[in-house]
Amino acid sequence: MRLIDADTPEKIRLQPQQAVHLGEAALRGIGYTEEESRIITHHLVDNSLCGYEFAGLPRILAIADSPELQNPRYPVKVIHETPVSALLDGGNHVGYISVNAGAELAIKKVRESGIAVVGVSNSWFSGRNAYYLEKIARAGYVGIHTVSGSPMVVPIGAKRPALGTNPIAFAFPAEKDPFIFDMGTGATMWGEVLLHAFLEKDFDDEVGVDANGTPTRNAKAIVQGGVVPFAGHKGYGLSLAIQALGLLAGARRRSGQVSDFGFLFIAFDPEILMPAAQFKAQLSELLQSIKALPRQDGVDEIRIPSERSQRERSLRQEQGILVQRRVYDRLMQMRDSDG
Amino acid sequence: MRLIDADTPEKIRLQPQQAVHLGEAALRGIGYTEEESRIITHHLVDNSLCGYEFAGLPRILAIADSPELQNPRYPVKVIHETPVSALLDGGNHVGYISVNAGAELAIKKVRESGIAVVGVSNSWFSGRNAYYLEKIARAGYVGIHTVSGSPMVVPIGAKRPALGTNPIAFAFPAEKDPFIFDMGTGATMWGEVLLHAFLEKDFDDEVGVDANGTPTRNAKAIVQGGVVPFAGHKGYGLSLAIQALGLLAGARRRSGQVSDFGFLFIAFDPEILMPAAQFKAQLSELLQSIKALPRQDGVDEIRIPSERSQRERSLRQEQGILVQRRVYDRLMQMRDSDG
Repeated sequence: MRLIDADTPEKIRLQPQQAVHLGEAALRGIGYTEEESRIITHHLVDNSLCGYEFAGLPRILAIADSPELQNPRYPVKVIHETPVSALLDGGNHVGYISVNAGAELAIKKVRESGIAVVGVSNSWFSGRNAYYLEKIARAGYVGIHTVSGSPMVVPIGAKRPALGTNPIAFAFPAEKDPFIFDMGTGATMWGEVLLHAFLEKDFDDEVGVDANGTPTRNAKAIVQGGVVPFAGHKGYGLSLAIQALGLLAGARRRSGQVSDFGFLFIAFDPEILMPAAQFKAQLSELLQSIKALPRQDGVDEIRIPSERSQRERSLRQEQGILVQRRVYDRLMQMRDSDG
Repeated sequence: MRLIDADTPEKIRLQPQQAVHLGEAALRGIGYTEEESRIITHHLVDNSLCGYEFAGLPRILAIADSPELQNPRYPVKVIHETPVSALLDGGNHVGYISVNAGAELAIKKVRESGIAVVGVSNSWFSGRNAYYLEKIARAGYVGIHTVSGSPMVVPIGAKRPALGTNPIAFAFPAEKDPFIFDMGTGATMWGEVLLHAFLEKDFDDEVGVDANGTPTRNAKAIVQGGVVPFAGHKGYGLSLAIQALGLLAGARRRSGQVSDFGFLFIAFDPEILMPAAQFKAQLSELLQSIKALPRQDGVDEIRIPSERSQRERSLRQEQGILVQRRVYDRLMQMRDSDG
């Protein structure tokens, strides 16, 4: 059987259940409750299964080392609520917990009211947006999710950042797997900037500005300055709209800044517009008609967003995931006595 | 006083009220009711005021000449409805009427339920998306509007179009004018393709493919082929998500094709999340903080989307709008006896 990830001496292969066991024990070891450990680890192992290795178990080390997450935490709580909405205080929790609570509350409200908008603030890293939206779509609902963040992206014409990398994502239930699309609105991801800076590698294009606002390809300079929006004015406008949605999600509550983290979900049941089975059949027909188009030379397959990660997940569920030995060793040390 | 539009011999200057009077009379002259003529003309004159000359009164000639709009029309009707949603059959009306009915129904439902999703299909050209969203934002609500269209945009890796130019727009009430952002998801607008083809002018970049699917800068070839998405995979994914939202708006109802026109509104009252005044103040603070950023050399002003058109509208409300004489003359001939 072809292995999707080749073995290397620096990495150890874990079966999904082993990875879950290790992740949960390490999180319990640094003070997370059993339920919190379970929720966080499920997200992280799913990221690994879908092919996002660095968004997997290594994040537990980031959680352990994050100064913000050493501040006191309290349970996620509802600040404001109507039958079709809720605003949550994330309790200074990592987003894996608080944003997950937002997605689950959105599902509950859609089940009762047909549609809902839920905002979450006072929280940090939320991981892979498609993770939350997949829950919504597998519950049978359409979801839109936006995240506003702290200043990293520079408005067109400006020298300093004022917008987050502000992703937007959409999910739809289909006949088989859901169709999910997730994108950031910066010219590059912040993680790429940090990685390029670490590797001392320039970008091919001027994807950012330095501390003086001068456009640059140099990653270390961009860390001190900011990233430009993707696609010029379109990316800037979209990022600004997402920052505004972040305000509705309560972004300003955490630090008092209008440009801060705000996680928003809009979700609805297709049944409020048409029979869900009819929508799913039409969406599947649309996706199939796109896949069946004549292809450009050298193109094996016309891709539908989220198709690759769902396909890879089934393979890794069989074959396991790779974890760097130094990550594995540290997680082993962190485990609680039940690990 | 500086004129925003300079006079030319080919154009005639009309005060807004004159333009409204002429447009309404011309539409009544080709069989539109008094109310329909009023609704269409209000939209068109507003487009002119905001600086979109070709989206103004000249569109009445396009309406008069459109083969689709010669087919029988019937009143816009509700096909399916819940307290938080509606699906409308646009009755083969021009979108100026049917999509406007969708926006007004969304406002009514948000007033009653706090949030709503409304879809419209079986309709044609809807004009400027910001027009509808401005109504929603001036009613105090947040609006998201997407439009799926018939195949013009080519999925990444394909040779033939399967997606519309699929715009998405957002609007938010603020302390003064609303903040509205509207973008298409093709590498260029279809109107630009037609204009370039008419002027026999090539594009600077390969923004499309010819009838064989070969990338090209030639506008006439693109008319026979299709446009590529803006920003590569991001534009493609966004366009596909908007096509899926179009299905929920009933796109398939008109022609049975999964890639067809579907107009969707999602709107909600900020009050379901936080006091509206607080949101408006925070949004205004965000926009002001962006405008106050240090600027790149040679940049007079950091722009906020929709600011320019709103500013120009106030000027043209004083100064009037310019209409080409040949458009003016034909509209004069079309007038009914009350014109």
